[in-house]
Amino acid sequence: MRRNYKKENLPVDKIRKFLEPGPIVLVSSRWKDETNIMSMGWHTVMEFSPSRIGCFITGANHSYDMIRKSRECVINIPTVNLLDEVIGIGNSTGTQVDKFRKFKLTPEEADEVNAPLIKECYANFECKVVDESLLRKYSFFILEVVKAHAAVYPKYPTTVHYRGEGVFMISGKNISKVRKFKPQNL
Amino acid sequence: MRRNYKKENLPVDKIRKFLEPGPIVLVSSRWKDETNIMSMGWHTVMEFSPSRIGCFITGANHSYDMIRKSRECVINIPTVNLLDEVIGIGNSTGTQVDKFRKFKLTPEEADEVNAPLIKECYANFECKVVDESLLRKYSFFILEVVKAHAAVYPKYPTTVHYRGEGVFMISGKNISKVRKFKPQNL
Repeated sequence: MRRNYKKENLPVDKIRKFLEPGPIVLVSSRWKDETNIMSMGWHTVMEFSPSRIGCFITGANHSYDMIRKSRECVINIPTVNLLDEVIGIGNSTGTQVDKFRKFKLTPEEADEVNAPLIKECYANFECKVVDESLLRKYSFFILEVVKAHAAVYPKYPTTVHYRGEGVFMISGKNISKVRKFKPQNL
Repeated sequence: MRRNYKKENLPVDKIRKFLEPGPIVLVSSRWKDETNIMSMGWHTVMEFSPSRIGCFITGANHSYDMIRKSRECVINIPTVNLLDEVIGIGNSTGTQVDKFRKFKLTPEEADEVNAPLIKECYANFECKVVDESLLRKYSFFILEVVKAHAAVYPKYPTTVHYRGEGVFMISGKNISKVRKFKPQNL
């Protein structure tokens, strides 16, 4: 079942609330006339202002060259209803199929980058590559989020988290511990 | 409630199953006669063989200097029963308190590093700092896991994942999609 998320702009320094819990994301890219999507689980927030993300993408992925050449991509947050698409995207390569078409996903124009947003995802973070110094040695891209869009409802998406060996953890219930935090640590 | 996890050695190339879903971890360190613990949510798997982890730790943390000088630390995986300790550890600084003592956690000798394991955690990954080239610009440590210990039961720990604003997501149910994967992508 596809959801038609109504989205608003999200301040880029707030994206950590969606990435820090460790969801599988879909990375969309565009180079010349071609678009592509890959599934990715190896990423981390690196700073919130400027809003930085680090992520591991090997040269074995068709997306690697597309992101390296265009110096842009979009990090999209899929929810559990897209789990079969997440797996299918990971199982196939953009050298052979048009993944937007094959998985019936809708590319939308981004505001700050040429790479397309994936409409069916809960949130979309437009990114520019800002540091390639770890690319050759570690296949590690450092990205800056330049624009972010996130659904208004629900407040927290039901994300999927990879446990290896074909098993996914579905994000569970939330516990607020706000009163236990020092305000500056929230 | 504390759990007395029975642990076995885990091949270091298998640690991703515990880190990739994005849990909050506790980082323990030792420098000279002092030990310390910090709570950390900004980390990613970077490779499984060699087993590499990248993590963001700023100089504002007392642990930063301890890890930089000793070039070692342990990544410990706490479960939800330690959530109040996770928050308390994040709220306090090792310059003022002995966190093992204050939070009644038990330091155990590691095999390959001098930093202590935290006995009460589900898993413990002994790490050496292998690359500091992003430290000054991004506060980003690249670690290699040299030895790993993980509980035998339960198969998957109930971990906590930070959503920001004082809210934690508790890891939810698992779904096996193993039959949908290409074997080489598992």
